[in-house]
Amino acid sequence: MIWEAPPYRWPHGHRAAACFSVDVDANSPYLWEQRAQMPGTLARIEHRAYGMRRGLARMVDMLDSLGIRGSFFVPGVVAEDNPSLLPGLVARGHEVALHGYFHELVGDITDAQFTEALERSLDLFETQTGERPRGFRSPAWEMTPHMLAELHRLNLWDSSLMGHDLPYTIGGVTEIPVRWDNDDAIFFKFLGAGDRPPRSPLEIGATWRHEAEAQIDDGGLFMLTVHDWISGRAARIAMLREIWQDLADNPDVWVATCGEIAAHHATQTALEVAPTLPRAVNERDSR
Amino acid sequence: MIWEAPPYRWPHGHRAAACFSVDVDANSPYLWEQRAQMPGTLARIEHRAYGMRRGLARMVDMLDSLGIRGSFFVPGVVAEDNPSLLPGLVARGHEVALHGYFHELVGDITDAQFTEALERSLDLFETQTGERPRGFRSPAWEMTPHMLAELHRLNLWDSSLMGHDLPYTIGGVTEIPVRWDNDDAIFFKFLGAGDRPPRSPLEIGATWRHEAEAQIDDGGLFMLTVHDWISGRAARIAMLREIWQDLADNPDVWVATCGEIAAHHATQTALEVAPTLPRAVNERDSR
Amino acid sequence: MIWEAPPYRWPHGHRAAACFSVDVDANSPYLWEQRAQMPGTLARIEHRAYGMRRGLARMVDMLDSLGIRGSFFVPGVVAEDNPSLLPGLVARGHEVALHGYFHELVGDITDAQFTEALERSLDLFETQTGERPRGFRSPAWEMTPHMLAELHRLNLWDSSLMGHDLPYTIGGVTEIPVRWDNDDAIFFKFLGAGDRPPRSPLEIGATWRHEAEAQIDDGGLFMLTVHDWISGRAARIAMLREIWQDLADNPDVWVATCGEIAAHHATQTALEVAPTLPRAVNERDSR
Amino acid sequence: MIWEAPPYRWPHGHRAAACFSVDVDANSPYLWEQRAQMPGTLARIEHRAYGMRRGLARMVDMLDSLGIRGSFFVPGVVAEDNPSLLPGLVARGHEVALHGYFHELVGDITDAQFTEALERSLDLFETQTGERPRGFRSPAWEMTPHMLAELHRLNLWDSSLMGHDLPYTIGGVTEIPVRWDNDDAIFFKFLGAGDRPPRSPLEIGATWRHEAEAQIDDGGLFMLTVHDWISGRAARIAMLREIWQDLADNPDVWVATCGEIAAHHATQTALEVAPTLPRAVNERDSR
Repeated sequence: MIWEAPPYRWPHGHRAAACFSVDVDANSPYLWEQRAQMPGTLARIEHRAYGMRRGLARMVDMLDSLGIRGSFFVPGVVAEDNPSLLPGLVARGHEVALHGYFHELVGDITDAQFTEALERSLDLFETQTGERPRGFRSPAWEMTPHMLAELHRLNLWDSSLMGHDLPYTIGGVTEIPVRWDNDDAIFFKFLGAGDRPPRSPLEIGATWRHEAEAQIDDGGLFMLTVHDWISGRAARIAMLREIWQDLADNPDVWVATCGEIAAHHATQTALEVAPTLPRAVNERDSR
Repeated sequence: MIWEAPPYRWPHGHRAAACFSVDVDANSPYLWEQRAQMPGTLARIEHRAYGMRRGLARMVDMLDSLGIRGSFFVPGVVAEDNPSLLPGLVARGHEVALHGYFHELVGDITDAQFTEALERSLDLFETQTGERPRGFRSPAWEMTPHMLAELHRLNLWDSSLMGHDLPYTIGGVTEIPVRWDNDDAIFFKFLGAGDRPPRSPLEIGATWRHEAEAQIDDGGLFMLTVHDWISGRAARIAMLREIWQDLADNPDVWVATCGEIAAHHATQTALEVAPTLPRAVNERDSR
Repeated sequence: MIWEAPPYRWPHGHRAAACFSVDVDANSPYLWEQRAQMPGTLARIEHRAYGMRRGLARMVDMLDSLGIRGSFFVPGVVAEDNPSLLPGLVARGHEVALHGYFHELVGDITDAQFTEALERSLDLFETQTGERPRGFRSPAWEMTPHMLAELHRLNLWDSSLMGHDLPYTIGGVTEIPVRWDNDDAIFFKFLGAGDRPPRSPLEIGATWRHEAEAQIDDGGLFMLTVHDWISGRAARIAMLREIWQDLADNPDVWVATCGEIAAHHATQTALEVAPTLPRAVNERDSR
Repeated sequence: MIWEAPPYRWPHGHRAAACFSVDVDANSPYLWEQRAQMPGTLARIEHRAYGMRRGLARMVDMLDSLGIRGSFFVPGVVAEDNPSLLPGLVARGHEVALHGYFHELVGDITDAQFTEALERSLDLFETQTGERPRGFRSPAWEMTPHMLAELHRLNLWDSSLMGHDLPYTIGGVTEIPVRWDNDDAIFFKFLGAGDRPPRSPLEIGATWRHEAEAQIDDGGLFMLTVHDWISGRAARIAMLREIWQDLADNPDVWVATCGEIAAHHATQTALEVAPTLPRAVNERDSR
C-alpha cells in the first residue's frame, strides 16, 4: 500500500499530459485469429478494410489540422501489406512504434516466437522508414516477464499496462500506461450478431472528456487509444476533434507522443516495480 | 493505404446523400433458423407478426408523409406469404429489392443454393410487380466472391458491405455501403431472456442524428437500415420521423433510393476493389 | 400485410389507453428453476424477499395515492405463501389475475400440467378472495395453441403476446398485448455476476415516458409491466410516480385495468387472428 | 406480505442514513480464482495493483477532505501483503472490517473452511491494528445459515444481503443491507475482451445521486460499495466527491459507518427474519 503519489513533474510547467495513440490493427487481428486458413467470406474483410481505405487518412488529417502528433502502433503485417503507411505517417511527423508482427496474442505464442516477431518488426520498420522504432505496445495489452526482459534488452519503452496514472518503470522498462476505459474498441467495435452493440460517440465523447479533465486536475496522463477502422468513421472523428481541440488549446496540458513522454520519464523520480507475480494461494503458508 | 478520398460528386449540387432502407424480414429469419420444423410456441411468431400487421404500414405512412421514397429489401418467402406487400410498396412509389428467398444465411448454404434462391426471388418479384428488381442485399450482410459474381452476371447492384463511406465498386458490382452502427436490429431487437435489453429510441435517435450530420459534413452517404417489426413501433417511428424530416428539409442532402444512388454511381470516379481475400498468415513467407 | 389499423375506439372519448400491470413473481421463478431442491444459499432468497417485505407495499401506496388501479398477476405459490397478498390487493380496489401456479415455464411442462396449474390457481384465488379471476398472463410471456384453447374454454382474457398495439383477438381469446420494451425486468433485474448491469431509472423513465407519449399520439395502448422485488425500490418508484402522475392527469388517456380493457374490447371491431404456426421452410413446396 | 414499513428512527433527527463502504479486494479475487497456480502473465496483476499503488490513497484523501469516515472491508491476504493498509486506515479514523481471508467464494468452500478463514482474519486484524473488528461482509455477497450462525457466535454484524432498505435482523445478526445497484464493480469493472464495457461515471454518478435522493426521501439507508482498484481512478473519484459532498452537507442525512449503524440498530424496532430457505416445489404437497 502506497499512501503518496510519486513527486512527478511534467515539462515546461504543464500540469498534466495527454497522448493520442492509434493501434493500426487493420485486418491483422482477424488474420491472426484465422491464421491457419482464411474463411471464404468477405464481410469482415471489407469492414476492416475501411481503415486503410478511408479511416486512417481521415484521422491523420484531423491530427494534422490540430497540430497534434500521434503515436501509431503498427503490426508488421499491416506495414508489409501497406508499404506507404509507415513512410506516410513519418513524413507527416507522427511517431510509429511496434505492435507485434501478426498481432500475435501472447497466450498463443512461445517466448521465442515473441522475440522473433519483435526483431522481424524492428527490421521491417528500419527498412521502410530508415529509423529504428523506440517503443512497443503489446497486442491486446498482455505482458510477461520475458517480454519485459526483451524490451529492456532492446532498449524499447512499453505502452501496454495499467498499473498507474503516471509513467512508471517495470523491470527496468519505461511504461507509458494505458486504460481500457480510454480505448475505442471496447465501446465501438461491432462485427456482427453476438457482439455488443456500439455505444454512441456522443456518450463516449462526453465520458472521455470527463476522464481527460479528471486526469488533468489530478496531474496524470490522459492516454487515449483508437483504431484505424473503428474510430476513422466520420462521427467518431467529429467527436475526437472536439476533445482534442480543447486539449491542444489547454495550456495546462502537454500533448505529446509516447516517445516524448518516455524521454521525459528518465528525468523523473517515479514508481519502480518488479515484474513479479504474487504467490498463489496454494503456495502460501497454511495457518 | 489510401491517403486521399475518391473525388466523388453527388448530383444536383448536393453535398451528401441519405437513404432510408428497410429489411422487411418479418418472420423469415426465424423460419430459416427453425427450417426443419417450427416449434409449437407462439410468442416469437406473434412478436414478429407485428410488422405485417401494423409496423410496416406505419413506417410507409411516415415516409409518404415526408415525401421520401425508401428501399425495401424483401425475402421471397415474405412476399409469397404477404401477396399485397410488394404491389402495395410499388404503388406508393417505393423501391423493392432482393433479400434472399428464405433469408438464407450465407454460411448455411452452397453456392448453387444461393443462385437458386436469387433466381427464384427474381421470378417471384417479376410475377408480383411486373418489374425486375435491380438490386440485392444479403441476409445478415455476409458476402462471398461467388455471390458477387452472380450479382455481376445478373446486373444487380449490392448493398451489404462496409468498406467505404461512399459507393464503390467490388468485383464489378456497384456497392451501396451499409453500417452496423446505422442498423436498428442491433440496438432494438429483443426476443426474450438472454437477449440484450433494447436501447432507448431517444439515445439511438440522437446517435443517428449525430452520425447523419457527420456524414453530411464529410460528403458521404448516410445509409439507415430498419426492420418492419422492430422499428414499426410508435416510439421508434416518432424518432425516425424527426430525423428524416430534417434530412428531407436539408438542401445539402440528396435523399435517394439505393437504385438512384447506384445509377448515379456509374457517372463517378470511385474506388474499385477486387473481392480478394488476404493471404492467411500460414501461407505467407516465413522469415 | 395489413395496410390499415383497425378502427378502434377507446371509451369516454379517450384517445389512448394505459395499464399499470405488476407480475408479482416474488421468489417463484427461482423456486421453479430450483424445483428439485433448493440450494443452501440465502443471497437470492433475501434479494427476492424484498418485494413481499417492502417493494410491493410501496408500489401499491404509490398507485393508491395517484388513484390508479393496477392489474396484479400472481402465481399461485406466491398467494399460498403470502395469504394476505390477494385479499390486501382486492381490498384496495386492484385487479388480481392468474400467472401460473409455480411460475411454470411453458417449455418445461406438458399441456396437462398447464391445465392443472391453471385450474389449481383459479381455485386458490376463489378461496382467498371469494371471486373468480377473469384473466391470465403467461410466465415469461410464452404461449401455445393449447393454452389459448384452455383460456377460451375458461372464458379468461390473456395478456402475454406482442402482435399489435391495440387489443386483439387470437383463437377467440381477448389479448391485451404486452411489450418487452415496457418491462422492468429486462432493464433492472440483476442477481449477481454474469447478469447485465441494471440501467438507470433516469434513462428508463425517460424512455418509457417517450414510449407512452408515442402510444398516446398513435391511439394505442401503453402497457407497462413491473415486478414487486425489482421496481419496488425507492428510486424506481420515484420514477414511476412521475410518469403515472402525468398519465393520470392526461385527459386523452384512459388509465384502466386489463379487465376493464378486455370488457371494452367486446364492443370493438378489432383484429382477429388464428393461433396458427407458419409452415416450416422444409414443408414448403420446393421450386 | 408486509403492508407497512418498520417504524425505524435514525439518530439525531436525521431522516435517512448513508454509508460509504469499500471492498478493498485488490488482487484477492484473482488470487482466489487462480489459487492452484498463478498464470505467468502480468496484465491483470498490474491492472489490479492500481488500487494499492494509487487508487485507495486517492479515495481515502477524498473521504478525509470531506470529513467522512468510510467502512473498509479487507480480505486477510490483502492486509497480509500490504501491512501498512489496516494501520493506515485506522490511523485516519476509518472503520476496517472482515471480508474473507482469500476472498473465498462461498460456493467453493466448506462450512469449516469458512469458519477457519473468519477466525484467521480476526486474528490478523487484531495483530495488525490492536483491535478486534466488529463486522463482516461476504465476498461476492453470498450467505448461508452456517455463516450467519458463526457471525452470531462471534458477535459480528453483517453487510451482505438485500432483503430491505433498512437495517434488519436475520438469525439474530444485525444486517446492514447492500444493493447491487449501488456497487461500482458491476458498472465499471473491465478486465479484457469478453467483459462488458464500463459505463460512464457521468451516467452512474447521476444514477447513484438519484438513488440516494430517493432513499433519503423514503427514510432508508443509502449504502454505496466501491473497490480500491476500480473507483480509485481520477474520474470516478471526481464523481464520488460531488455526490458525497452533497450528502455530507445535507442535514437530513446521517453519514455513518456500518459499525455506527449497527450500534444504532440495537435501539430500534426492526424487521426480524429467520435464515430459512423456502420449501422446494417438489417438496410441497401436490394437489
